[in-house]
Amino acid sequence: MPRNQQILLDNRPQGEAVASNFKLVATDTPALQDGQVLVRHHYLSLDPYMRGRMNDAKSYAQPQPLGEVMQGGTVGEVVESRSPKFAVGDKVVGFGGWQEYSVVDANQPGSLKKVDTTHVPLSHYLGAVGMPGVTAWYGLVKIIAPKEGDTVVVSAATGAVGSAFAALAKARGCRVVGIAGGPDKCQYAVDELHFDACIDYKQHSDGKAMGQALKEACPKGIDGYFENVGGWIMDAVMQRMNAFGRIALCGMIAGYDGAPLPMAHPALILVNRLKLEGFIVSEHMEVWPEALTELGQLVATGKLRPRESVAQGIAAAPEAFLGLLKGKNFGKQVVKLV
Amino acid sequence: MPRNQQILLDNRPQGEAVASNFKLVATDTPALQDGQVLVRHHYLSLDPYMRGRMNDAKSYAQPQPLGEVMQGGTVGEVVESRSPKFAVGDKVVGFGGWQEYSVVDANQPGSLKKVDTTHVPLSHYLGAVGMPGVTAWYGLVKIIAPKEGDTVVVSAATGAVGSAFAALAKARGCRVVGIAGGPDKCQYAVDELHFDACIDYKQHSDGKAMGQALKEACPKGIDGYFENVGGWIMDAVMQRMNAFGRIALCGMIAGYDGAPLPMAHPALILVNRLKLEGFIVSEHMEVWPEALTELGQLVATGKLRPRESVAQGIAAAPEAFLGLLKGKNFGKQVVKLV
Repeated sequence: MPRNQQILLDNRPQGEAVASNFKLVATDTPALQDGQVLVRHHYLSLDPYMRGRMNDAKSYAQPQPLGEVMQGGTVGEVVESRSPKFAVGDKVVGFGGWQEYSVVDANQPGSLKKVDTTHVPLSHYLGAVGMPGVTAWYGLVKIIAPKEGDTVVVSAATGAVGSAFAALAKARGCRVVGIAGGPDKCQYAVDELHFDACIDYKQHSDGKAMGQALKEACPKGIDGYFENVGGWIMDAVMQRMNAFGRIALCGMIAGYDGAPLPMAHPALILVNRLKLEGFIVSEHMEVWPEALTELGQLVATGKLRPRESVAQGIAAAPEAFLGLLKGKNFGKQVVKLV
Repeated sequence: MPRNQQILLDNRPQGEAVASNFKLVATDTPALQDGQVLVRHHYLSLDPYMRGRMNDAKSYAQPQPLGEVMQGGTVGEVVESRSPKFAVGDKVVGFGGWQEYSVVDANQPGSLKKVDTTHVPLSHYLGAVGMPGVTAWYGLVKIIAPKEGDTVVVSAATGAVGSAFAALAKARGCRVVGIAGGPDKCQYAVDELHFDACIDYKQHSDGKAMGQALKEACPKGIDGYFENVGGWIMDAVMQRMNAFGRIALCGMIAGYDGAPLPMAHPALILVNRLKLEGFIVSEHMEVWPEALTELGQLVATGKLRPRESVAQGIAAAPEAFLGLLKGKNFGKQVVKLV
């Protein structure tokens, strides 16, 4: 029975999330029941949506319960099995939470999935070939639905969703423009992620400057926008949207801390006949196989080379998560445990 | 050559539109060329969209030119014809503008359409069986796309769009809730327009009171919303939307005067996975025949009995229009000329 370090949600944020909202504890892993497997986590996924669940507010998902292990995606290896479905040594992706080990009921559909690490590194199943990748796929393919030659824009461009979005949009013949924080990220977006242009929101730090930068980067206007941020950046993008533009909303980082986040010019939805649609990728499981196949191929063929920010050890998870919320990560944020 | 009184746009509004933005002039109708007809207007249509065109701002339509006749829909009678397509006495709907007569090139597609007044009064071709009716139809059928039993809400409930919306939604088995200004309008909405409930926004005049009223009127939440107003009413409705709700935006009266009109809680689009779509009915001419057929049947069978506010004489048009922008009309606002 290995010792299992865990991060619990100890108390809810008052405004900004802080390290003291979390608590590190250790426990013994329990003996397995029939049908269960013990997974040793190699990586934890840290994702912006987790901030929303820390609040005790009505939302699409239940709030993260206080005093329980922080929920989240994990990849790892089966180290003990009392299920015929999994053997010791299997590499698996699941939803094990912020802890070193998890006990999983292998009979529960979708609780654990074997993955092939021949061409795709294990950690990428938390990013480009996982939930964030499918998120990019759904927003681009099902909501933005671009035609060849369309200009599409994504915020948080070098993150897990943004990286996948760029590769998927380039494969469809789009002009792809990113928005990211700082010259290094923007350089990386263009050099490594194949963005046609990337705008530094720290350099263009108000609506007017952002508007001018968008005008230069998108000379034919914007046909599709994938929203990861919200707030003033979205306001600036909306003013450059073409008629019949589509906006996929899947994240509003800027609003998770409870600060009011109005949309400045909703009348543009009418003036430019825009379509805005919010979505949660876990409600569209029917697209996952198709999306994961395409994303796996993009990674295997080197067309999508996602970058990761890797924090070391379970104790580093809270600070890495708080950094993610402030854009301190560079690429998909994971915590390496093994 | 009859004398033709006309209302011109003399100057653009600085903020709120005022009567002195308009100018009444008189001119002789010109002699007809081959292919032209002379139409004597019986009614002019006054519509909220006209306020947007008075501004010199980028929008979906060109601004109304200064010094020219205010543009708008008209119904009338052919009084002189040099086209084989129209005979003297034909009742016609067109886009003749704020004047007593118009000269129309009958060869230009869509410029003039003969209508049947056997079962539908002529003026209704400007309202329930015209552009506003089709607007309601498109937003309901193509964007909200309700299932039987859905709850749908419309603002400006007793106006031309709202009245048609109610009849169309009831025909589809929806619970239909209106929002209108004042007890008389609300009573009328329920008694004559078949709304299941109608909320008086003058009585429930802030977001909290409106939210409570919506909660009572829509016990199962709101599945579809047809937006005619914008601003705080839309904010209140958004907070009561069910997951996967749809919002059709076709008017934002509250914003036409140039006042900033933010959306308070755009994060709800994500939280509730809403779809918002702006549209202009003139860009969807393919639906007009189907929509007008249904609307004409609803009127002919008495299921849609739209009310009109009738101003008398061309000189009354500016004041009637300004009143419309303030909700002083009760039903479709027209100006009777004959």
